[in-house]
Amino acid sequence: MLPISFFPDRPLTVAVLGASGAVGQELLQLLQERSFPICELRLLASARSAGHVEPWNGSSLVVQEVSEAAFEGVDLVLASAGGSVSRQWRQVINSAGALMIDNSSAFRMDADVPLVVPEVNPEAVAEHQGVIANPNCTTILLTLVLAPLAARRALRRVVVSTYQSASGAGARAMEELKQLTQVVLAGETPCSEVLPHSLAFNLFLHNSPLMANSYCEEEMKMVNETRKIMGLPDLRFTATCVRVPVLRAHSEAVNIEFDEPFPVEEARQLLKVAAGLELIEDFEQNRFPMPTDVTDRDPVAVASHSAGHQ
Amino acid sequence: MLPISFFPDRPLTVAVLGASGAVGQELLQLLQERSFPICELRLLASARSAGHVEPWNGSSLVVQEVSEAAFEGVDLVLASAGGSVSRQWRQVINSAGALMIDNSSAFRMDADVPLVVPEVNPEAVAEHQGVIANPNCTTILLTLVLAPLAARRALRRVVVSTYQSASGAGARAMEELKQLTQVVLAGETPCSEVLPHSLAFNLFLHNSPLMANSYCEEEMKMVNETRKIMGLPDLRFTATCVRVPVLRAHSEAVNIEFDEPFPVEEARQLLKVAAGLELIEDFEQNRFPMPTDVTDRDPVAVASHSAGHQ
Repeated sequence: MLPISFFPDRPLTVAVLGASGAVGQELLQLLQERSFPICELRLLASARSAGHVEPWNGSSLVVQEVSEAAFEGVDLVLASAGGSVSRQWRQVINSAGALMIDNSSAFRMDADVPLVVPEVNPEAVAEHQGVIANPNCTTILLTLVLAPLAARRALRRVVVSTYQSASGAGARAMEELKQLTQVVLAGETPCSEVLPHSLAFNLFLHNSPLMANSYCEEEMKMVNETRKIMGLPDLRFTATCVRVPVLRAHSEAVNIEFDEPFPVEEARQLLKVAAGLELIEDFEQNRFPMPTDVTDRDPVAVASHSAGHQ
Repeated sequence: MLPISFFPDRPLTVAVLGASGAVGQELLQLLQERSFPICELRLLASARSAGHVEPWNGSSLVVQEVSEAAFEGVDLVLASAGGSVSRQWRQVINSAGALMIDNSSAFRMDADVPLVVPEVNPEAVAEHQGVIANPNCTTILLTLVLAPLAARRALRRVVVSTYQSASGAGARAMEELKQLTQVVLAGETPCSEVLPHSLAFNLFLHNSPLMANSYCEEEMKMVNETRKIMGLPDLRFTATCVRVPVLRAHSEAVNIEFDEPFPVEEARQLLKVAAGLELIEDFEQNRFPMPTDVTDRDPVAVASHSAGHQ
């Protein structure tokens, strides 16, 4: 779906910025699994992580400290080291002639930065000016579901409640969940350091700052990014983002109102064939998507459960 | 709020039916904590639990097998042994002259059975004909929030997503969650026996049968019971009920549309003073209700978080 000439027709020099983080590790895994055409891979991170050795295609690579020189000759930078790191290095990266695909929230809402979900709005990449942004995790799942439905009937209003795993807060949050769960099981009182509260057998509103409108930042990311990706700046959309004691994979309960009646069977067929989705629903067995279904897998599991007319 | 003559002005003979279950245990605890006026307490259960000894007010009581004779002279039966047990003993209980307060779903939607949340519709008890039903757990939380708001502005539509703890599935489900969590932490594959799937670091649609309309039974209980309690048979209301790996206390993300604008501050003040509720919200600290706030406590914690205009 990308323009044919988007990248030169040769293996690329790729840098992963934030190679030691939870997302960086997943990126390395995917680049190998998908045989991404790479002639040279540079693993970049903060000074703290420099020197770490990461396995790569049967061999290994040493993580380097990020620097101006590290981007020389690079074609593509996959950045996932947080918004401030992305902001700090954007100019250097673009001056080196590299395209930055940024997983942070730094530039997502900038008018000159395409915000892309490949299955939803691949055409947007053509307008990039050196940076393509990747949306927030919860936004990706949602737009994969909204896009095929919105292509058939206009959306009137969307209400989402999320069930977000510890993985979204990084590898340390996952470790903390496991550790504090042990503490609770031992009958002791858990005390969190990574997340603001103990997530062990508990849940809480997403740990991002509250905004003036009383939504948390994660919720407004979801609202604003979805509107941008879908090209629906006025979409009525409210989200409640909750962190739950799941290690990996976010879930969402999504209620969508359409301008016209939308037969459930028609919606189900659309979801069944939509790119990036896997329909998991067995009404007799009460078997619908669970985090353990999708952990370490690519497709987003979806069901048309409770698609009623209320 | 009860009619003054609802009960005789003397300590009552009370039977707890299902005294050995998770809810029965909570009932015994509450009867003691609240110094409920009891002259004789009978603990009744299936043959399997007969003979168990339960602590009671510094002494102890032996659980008896439920029988016709066990209800003789009883004023009040608190039943929480499942719908089939309630159905089986209703006639016997009423013939013995006792009032049955039933926690099962057996009679909730019957026209001659008041379905009561004391803070919401206490007046409904006056119409009882031997049975007063107690709604489903998720319905109680929700109506405590809806009632004070609906008294001020007409409800247009309600969308709820639940985050339900293992406790709702009983003591064995709570034990299973703890045990399977240990299994996952040990790096092994959990295999559930009580709940249909392992809840350890996982979540799934509520484990109740699916209905013809593609909602699960738990969701339709919530919809139908809420409509009955609120006296709004046509209320537009959809629910998605999800079991999460929390031990105790259900949570709900509730989105309410009103017919007219409802200033958030006005709603907040109503929730702050409403019976049965405790407002927990600190926008600066991102501190909102969590299951661990309310475990072993009576009030339902509520926040006006993300009360926007979408």
